[in-house]
Amino acid sequence: MTLTPKFAVFGGGSWATAIVKMICENLDEVGWYMRNKSAIEHIKKEHHNPNYLSAVEFNTAQLKLSSDINELIEYADYLIFAIPSAFLFSELEKVSTPFKNKVVFSAIKGIVPETSLIVGDHLYTHHHIPFKNIGVISGPCHAEEVALERLSYLTIACTDEKKAQIIATNLSSNYIKCTTSDDIIGVEYAAVLKNIYAIAAGIAHGLGYGDNFQSVLMSNAIREMKRYIKNVHKLKRDINDSVYLGDLLVTGYSAFSRNRMFGNMIGKGYTVKSAQMEMSMVAEGYYATKSACQINQDKKKKRVKTPIINAVFNILYQKKDQKKVFEKLAEKMN
Amino acid sequence: MTLTPKFAVFGGGSWATAIVKMICENLDEVGWYMRNKSAIEHIKKEHHNPNYLSAVEFNTAQLKLSSDINELIEYADYLIFAIPSAFLFSELEKVSTPFKNKVVFSAIKGIVPETSLIVGDHLYTHHHIPFKNIGVISGPCHAEEVALERLSYLTIACTDEKKAQIIATNLSSNYIKCTTSDDIIGVEYAAVLKNIYAIAAGIAHGLGYGDNFQSVLMSNAIREMKRYIKNVHKLKRDINDSVYLGDLLVTGYSAFSRNRMFGNMIGKGYTVKSAQMEMSMVAEGYYATKSACQINQDKKKKRVKTPIINAVFNILYQKKDQKKVFEKLAEKMN
Repeated sequence: MTLTPKFAVFGGGSWATAIVKMICENLDEVGWYMRNKSAIEHIKKEHHNPNYLSAVEFNTAQLKLSSDINELIEYADYLIFAIPSAFLFSELEKVSTPFKNKVVFSAIKGIVPETSLIVGDHLYTHHHIPFKNIGVISGPCHAEEVALERLSYLTIACTDEKKAQIIATNLSSNYIKCTTSDDIIGVEYAAVLKNIYAIAAGIAHGLGYGDNFQSVLMSNAIREMKRYIKNVHKLKRDINDSVYLGDLLVTGYSAFSRNRMFGNMIGKGYTVKSAQMEMSMVAEGYYATKSACQINQDKKKKRVKTPIINAVFNILYQKKDQKKVFEKLAEKMN
Repeated sequence: MTLTPKFAVFGGGSWATAIVKMICENLDEVGWYMRNKSAIEHIKKEHHNPNYLSAVEFNTAQLKLSSDINELIEYADYLIFAIPSAFLFSELEKVSTPFKNKVVFSAIKGIVPETSLIVGDHLYTHHHIPFKNIGVISGPCHAEEVALERLSYLTIACTDEKKAQIIATNLSSNYIKCTTSDDIIGVEYAAVLKNIYAIAAGIAHGLGYGDNFQSVLMSNAIREMKRYIKNVHKLKRDINDSVYLGDLLVTGYSAFSRNRMFGNMIGKGYTVKSAQMEMSMVAEGYYATKSACQINQDKKKKRVKTPIINAVFNILYQKKDQKKVFEKLAEKMN
């Protein structure tokens, strides 16, 4: 590894674009992989991503763009994956370059549907990357506000504090503040679960529940999240740290949240299919809901009470009536 | 005390109006005191409060209205005060009827400025009401949503569980769910502090900070609130219960919040005076900010770190530049 390590970001969406922007504030060069060749051509010519955060102007001399995933895996020391979890498995199938010795950070909020694993566990289990080389980049952070250079806080989690620090240094700027953490599993689960709670918030809104109810829903959600994460990975953590509670709030309350928007449509009576068709973005909480239920049903572990996740599951996967499910859920909350 | 105790609500504002509405769902008669005689006449004729929640229709046969505070203190067994904290002291000076043996619940969110005490402590210290007869009614609950009959949750706190239960029974309906608690002091402080944090959220918004920052601010606020309340009253409590966290969120995030609105104007550059003149309602967090700082400087107690409260204090009372204060605050948050 060189003194100044090389970075590459994998993904063409808004979060990937935001991360490339952050790194460009610090490094002369950053690798950027995206599948979409015409988007690459557009960036080279027009200096912005045509599809996401198109207001962000890049100095293309800083960008090492490629649609060849292997080229950039070979190029970089630090790989940052910001591919939607639903596509990670198929993208990694393209990889022939060994990357066991690379440092791999996930900026993905979701569970890999093919393996029902959070990304860290997936990288460890399926790609044999040692845990000390795996990390997570988490919010609370909407990419849209990074584009606007509005002050945002990131948490960089890795069991190897030095690696977390290197990522933190290279993402920080006058509008990005980074904290480090060693709770990689808890941080990943929080990022996954909060999308489910954002769907719940959206459904409630769509059904006509108000602000009073939403605040009770969020306060029940953070307690549910605490139980859930403690059960999958016991560790001393303050669930009210920004990376857990803040991330839940920014997703549950923000107009930018795709998951909340998806839930809102479901609450208003759209079917899952029609809501998905209306939205051009993937609501990761949809897949997360199923996986989170499955993980909680793992017979080797204690099961925890997850009334909110169960309610969302019953609506999205069991086609239960959203109004009735929420009436029952309301009885269980306090 | 009779088998079905008599209730009276004191106050003419939106929260008092909402509580009268809740009780009217359960009792044939409820006492309602307000200073404003013409408002009383209006309610008698037009069946709604002319100034607050005017969409709420009352069956006036249920209302025992009076502008004589002593008449209604004598009448009722359960007194519910919903007078803004800034006026409580002067209102109670009018009382000549003994009320030591009444059960007194406070629905006031604030500190009595004249004594720098939360309402429960004020009632105990200045009116010799025993603690077992003092209780608190708290949200998360915007009065405006009660008017709309949107499902809302209340917490009724009293060291005497039976009395909390009686209040809970008489406020509950198909749109109001009540939980009871014995943490009267913690619940009161939470209701006071959250208004300060809502002012902070408003200032941040007014200064142009976005959703990412707001979520970090709220997650720092709940940790600060936890430290603060633990310091003034040590007790086993889950700060993420709706009455603490939910109440913070509904006030910090909601468009209905007067304190957030006030903070927003301050953030945009209004002076305290001009912001107060623009608003026809009292932002209780303004007074709370000063009192909360004073209480934390009590030399008999340990001081806790309250960077957010201090920031609001410096802006509102020390005329420090809001932009600079928030830049410093942002450095302290994580």
